[in-house]
Amino acid sequence: MSSTIRVAVAGASGYAGGEMLRLLAAHPRVEVGAVTAHTSAGTALGEHQPHLRSLAHRVIEPTTPEALAGHDVVVLALPHGASGAVAAQLPGDTLVLDLGADHRLTDAEAWRTFYGSEHAGSWPYGLPELIVAEGAGGAGVARQRDRLAGATRIAVPGCNVTAVTLGLQPGVAAGLIDPSDVVAVLANGYSGAGKSLKPHLLASEGLGSARPYAVGGTHRHIPEIAQNLRTAGAPGVRLSFTPTLVPMSRGILATVTAPLAGGSGTGTAAGAVRQAWVEAYADEPFVHVLPEGQWPSTAMTQGANTALIQVAVDEAAGRVVTVTAIDNLVKGTAGQAVQAMNIALGLPETSGLGVEGVAP
Amino acid sequence: MSSTIRVAVAGASGYAGGEMLRLLAAHPRVEVGAVTAHTSAGTALGEHQPHLRSLAHRVIEPTTPEALAGHDVVVLALPHGASGAVAAQLPGDTLVLDLGADHRLTDAEAWRTFYGSEHAGSWPYGLPELIVAEGAGGAGVARQRDRLAGATRIAVPGCNVTAVTLGLQPGVAAGLIDPSDVVAVLANGYSGAGKSLKPHLLASEGLGSARPYAVGGTHRHIPEIAQNLRTAGAPGVRLSFTPTLVPMSRGILATVTAPLAGGSGTGTAAGAVRQAWVEAYADEPFVHVLPEGQWPSTAMTQGANTALIQVAVDEAAGRVVTVTAIDNLVKGTAGQAVQAMNIALGLPETSGLGVEGVAP
Amino acid sequence: MSSTIRVAVAGASGYAGGEMLRLLAAHPRVEVGAVTAHTSAGTALGEHQPHLRSLAHRVIEPTTPEALAGHDVVVLALPHGASGAVAAQLPGDTLVLDLGADHRLTDAEAWRTFYGSEHAGSWPYGLPELIVAEGAGGAGVARQRDRLAGATRIAVPGCNVTAVTLGLQPGVAAGLIDPSDVVAVLANGYSGAGKSLKPHLLASEGLGSARPYAVGGTHRHIPEIAQNLRTAGAPGVRLSFTPTLVPMSRGILATVTAPLAGGSGTGTAAGAVRQAWVEAYADEPFVHVLPEGQWPSTAMTQGANTALIQVAVDEAAGRVVTVTAIDNLVKGTAGQAVQAMNIALGLPETSGLGVEGVAP
Amino acid sequence: MSSTIRVAVAGASGYAGGEMLRLLAAHPRVEVGAVTAHTSAGTALGEHQPHLRSLAHRVIEPTTPEALAGHDVVVLALPHGASGAVAAQLPGDTLVLDLGADHRLTDAEAWRTFYGSEHAGSWPYGLPELIVAEGAGGAGVARQRDRLAGATRIAVPGCNVTAVTLGLQPGVAAGLIDPSDVVAVLANGYSGAGKSLKPHLLASEGLGSARPYAVGGTHRHIPEIAQNLRTAGAPGVRLSFTPTLVPMSRGILATVTAPLAGGSGTGTAAGAVRQAWVEAYADEPFVHVLPEGQWPSTAMTQGANTALIQVAVDEAAGRVVTVTAIDNLVKGTAGQAVQAMNIALGLPETSGLGVEGVAP
Repeated sequence: MSSTIRVAVAGASGYAGGEMLRLLAAHPRVEVGAVTAHTSAGTALGEHQPHLRSLAHRVIEPTTPEALAGHDVVVLALPHGASGAVAAQLPGDTLVLDLGADHRLTDAEAWRTFYGSEHAGSWPYGLPELIVAEGAGGAGVARQRDRLAGATRIAVPGCNVTAVTLGLQPGVAAGLIDPSDVVAVLANGYSGAGKSLKPHLLASEGLGSARPYAVGGTHRHIPEIAQNLRTAGAPGVRLSFTPTLVPMSRGILATVTAPLAGGSGTGTAAGAVRQAWVEAYADEPFVHVLPEGQWPSTAMTQGANTALIQVAVDEAAGRVVTVTAIDNLVKGTAGQAVQAMNIALGLPETSGLGVEGVAP
Repeated sequence: MSSTIRVAVAGASGYAGGEMLRLLAAHPRVEVGAVTAHTSAGTALGEHQPHLRSLAHRVIEPTTPEALAGHDVVVLALPHGASGAVAAQLPGDTLVLDLGADHRLTDAEAWRTFYGSEHAGSWPYGLPELIVAEGAGGAGVARQRDRLAGATRIAVPGCNVTAVTLGLQPGVAAGLIDPSDVVAVLANGYSGAGKSLKPHLLASEGLGSARPYAVGGTHRHIPEIAQNLRTAGAPGVRLSFTPTLVPMSRGILATVTAPLAGGSGTGTAAGAVRQAWVEAYADEPFVHVLPEGQWPSTAMTQGANTALIQVAVDEAAGRVVTVTAIDNLVKGTAGQAVQAMNIALGLPETSGLGVEGVAP
Repeated sequence: MSSTIRVAVAGASGYAGGEMLRLLAAHPRVEVGAVTAHTSAGTALGEHQPHLRSLAHRVIEPTTPEALAGHDVVVLALPHGASGAVAAQLPGDTLVLDLGADHRLTDAEAWRTFYGSEHAGSWPYGLPELIVAEGAGGAGVARQRDRLAGATRIAVPGCNVTAVTLGLQPGVAAGLIDPSDVVAVLANGYSGAGKSLKPHLLASEGLGSARPYAVGGTHRHIPEIAQNLRTAGAPGVRLSFTPTLVPMSRGILATVTAPLAGGSGTGTAAGAVRQAWVEAYADEPFVHVLPEGQWPSTAMTQGANTALIQVAVDEAAGRVVTVTAIDNLVKGTAGQAVQAMNIALGLPETSGLGVEGVAP
Repeated sequence: MSSTIRVAVAGASGYAGGEMLRLLAAHPRVEVGAVTAHTSAGTALGEHQPHLRSLAHRVIEPTTPEALAGHDVVVLALPHGASGAVAAQLPGDTLVLDLGADHRLTDAEAWRTFYGSEHAGSWPYGLPELIVAEGAGGAGVARQRDRLAGATRIAVPGCNVTAVTLGLQPGVAAGLIDPSDVVAVLANGYSGAGKSLKPHLLASEGLGSARPYAVGGTHRHIPEIAQNLRTAGAPGVRLSFTPTLVPMSRGILATVTAPLAGGSGTGTAAGAVRQAWVEAYADEPFVHVLPEGQWPSTAMTQGANTALIQVAVDEAAGRVVTVTAIDNLVKGTAGQAVQAMNIALGLPETSGLGVEGVAP
């Protein structure tokens, strides 16, 4: 591969595609190649992404194999169900990053249950910090990043999944929590819903209001979270998961609780819990356990590829409580994709990715 | 009592006091008497509550027994810990509504643990729709409103408490949920924090961000919720409670989950659960279980004395999930106080209280 | 007319129709009759206006002459251009309130220029506080309300128009400002754009951002403002008008400036200007000039039928600066309609209308 | 100078200081040296700027000459009036960037009138794109950047000033507008007010509301705007200036209008006006005139050092209307400072500065 990496983005007019382009434009090794889309083909990128000043003059091409050919990397920022067909037409040695859900689940049955269509197959899962329990040995904790080096197909995780997994997995891996009764409630920014023109996504409806959606075990991110926690060492995951739309454009604040494991003595739990979380992420460049007493806010992560976490033990309730903040479009989507791309291509994992949030 | 009820409001320059005055000004039987405060005494009410046009010219008096004398009703919208001393100086036959926490808890030990001071004593608790299990008999469900008729001292519940209690109590009363592992996560508007001048309450910090507070079993509303659920019939309540500040001025969206009770057959649970919730509030003027499939938003309740609820059963997780929306300053504070006042004085319970939200 | 006034609302699923219903439901003399709409006919009102709890069970009827027959008042909350045809089918003695633009302009040519269709004709204009210069005589200032008593057709003004007109007309009537170079810039909440499903109206786009629209003299409210200022006594109105969308659901904050009139001595201008504004609204129940030094915010007017105004003289710039806050859906639309209805029917002008804003 | 530039930031716990550190941390040539403050000295930077992950562990030092010694660049992000004394103690060959107002005005009398204290003196003004009329000759337009190369003291402009100046100066330089009656109304994010603990800056007050401040010619940015427009070639500037707080944390949207100059034929004005604006910024890396028909929003500039501008001619009103969007903390403060620093030190002007906004 030449010293410059050419990257094409399919689905360039949406939020995920736009964020991908924002990050790629700042990546020291990347040259942005084709930008493609479906209905907006033939128009200037600046009509859809006017904030991307260096790319505003680019003309959007149709999403075809020809347009996507000749790139080192192709990013698919397409609606769920659309990436399988496009990916099948791309060369095997092109690195393909799928920001959609199509290739995340390993269980075809779970796919059919939650998505109602045939499963497109499973790709290496692009959450570098995911703890891989089966690989654990004397040499320390194995991580999912070990499986991404040299990969040519990567399924990038969903935003809710990233927040919940990173927040809870240290307790899973350390055996400190009981995974059979996890409860997660999330505050979600509106960009997670995409540019869909639906009445409840209008500014007049969203401003000044909070509302839940996909309540009662129906959200498609549930089997993906369970899959991750199993990878981290938890058999028998049961998860109550409720996302809520709150009046912000970006960000996820995930409050996740799980029972203290049976063996955890309540007298010593708080210290052991905190230590497990701190150790799990001590060497991670993007996942930070905050100093004791400081809780994350989504503003702290805005525009950055960070996940900020705090954990507490509620002894009276017998539960561990963790709160994780991410920017849903960065660590939750496009930044995670860049991080996975860096690993797959052998670049420094942090290339082109920042840790300073745009706050206040 | 004359046909016009004279009401004084102590703490008139704060948010709770202001909302009380907004509702009282619209009450057909009420005349607003003295408006009092501490540091703002001597200034025009309009400097602090410029939205209260009909009262803007009123001059705030100091909070003294003399100023509060000669009213049929005195509302105490004071900081926690301050109402006990003021109330002690008021005549026994004056109806005193305490919007603060001082007289809510019946357990002096719980008060000392969570508030760190001596307990001021317990007053009749002003949540009219609270189910009272011990009073249940052949004639139907007993409610807390039965204990408020003729009362001269009423402790008005907290806003988080109201949302969580109303959302969960039907399941408690019907024996459908297990109260030993309740998890509640709330999205809270900023007015719940009062006019405190703290950095994290600044608009520049709050806009576009979500953040938790009082995580890990430390929030003072926890023992009050447990007390209510015990009243509704649940021994052995254990509660994980996490409030989160989100960018709205008003409103609470409470997501509350609890395990299905052991005897609930999962096959029939959803229908039985929904029926229990619908029946519990069928006759309530302010608490509405929404039609199946419709979930509440805080905007729907803005400015109104309503609590809007929906419930679902997540069979895979083995949990009931309820979401409740209220306006924290109305059904969560001042509207609830007016409702309790109406009951205590023998007025129609809905006098001066609206059910139409100011939306969008 | 019977003591109860039956009112039908056509366009009941939109924001203007919903706000009309919110206010009518609280009006002591009104019974809400038919609620009608076009595409949502046959569905429950609660699907579209879930915040209107007392009317949520109502079924929306199609907007037909039959459905609208038999009411004392019919409110047309329809898209611009649609009300003329519906109104033509209603009896002449039914009071028809048009919340749309169709019948506001007296100048058919201006209508054609800004709306591009044939003019439906002109109805009595429903801004009660509008100063009518031609009617001024020894007995004081004439107002538009004098023309509304007994009217059976009323064109309710636009929201931007109401804010700009009320803010500036005292200076026009008193001859203190030069109307030939008025500049108005408005901060507008998103509900003013209706429930239109357009990308720039999405919450993800609106949250955290401000943007202008209809810049450069193209906005359809411009000729209506000029018409009002002419009525108030200003020949030769020239107006630069720029609305900007800001992240709030409701509210208009109109900053309007005009040159001091040539004869205004700058040394004495400030006092005379303030006096003119105070006097102009001294007897108005809904339009308040705030105490000196206090400036309006839109929150102060939320949900209320108030217009709050402050005025200053910038001697260095040679301009009067006024700032006016209204709730665009209340004093800017539905509240104004109720006010006009009250006048037309001989009810107290303030019936069913509040002056206390829902703040904070 | 060594290849790494050491930069100290005084006032590191405030918003301007924090944003300076965010940008410096990403600057390829900069090493962040001392971070100093007053009341927060001795605490970790992460307590005040938790979003700055790479610097969170830094300990804040007191703002003393010793702490600031030994740096190539010192940034003063101090309250107005405080930087003069600190700067006087710094070596003459250290580049000092003052983000405060102290050294911006050349007219000591204007300083005393608007700030009420003694003038600290005037430094080279750090708005690189400012047109300098007196320097104009056959070789094209002179810019303020020419005066910054090699400077060791730079007064960085205010945020409102930057937006208004950039928006209007092309018309001034081309003689197309009449500077004697400029009207500017701004929508401002709350971070522009700093971390001041004032009631009207609370989230509960700001959310869902718009309000003006410093109305009527009193804002301290007025003489600075006039000074800039004089530099760009406009004698006799008169300016009506009204900022309004709207519910966003960052961003300024400046709507600025001025009369078309007497000689401008209205028939040809629109094309000539647009051409003048386009040409004025054709070579500017950070100031972009958007394509015809596209208007700026503040979201497009979030986190970026861009100013986005559109212009229209309102022939009926006889006015040019321009709208400019910036991020008040970047192009309005810290980004502008980095840009000026780059020029002063002979680095590429765009080093460390991005043009892609963080949107949506």
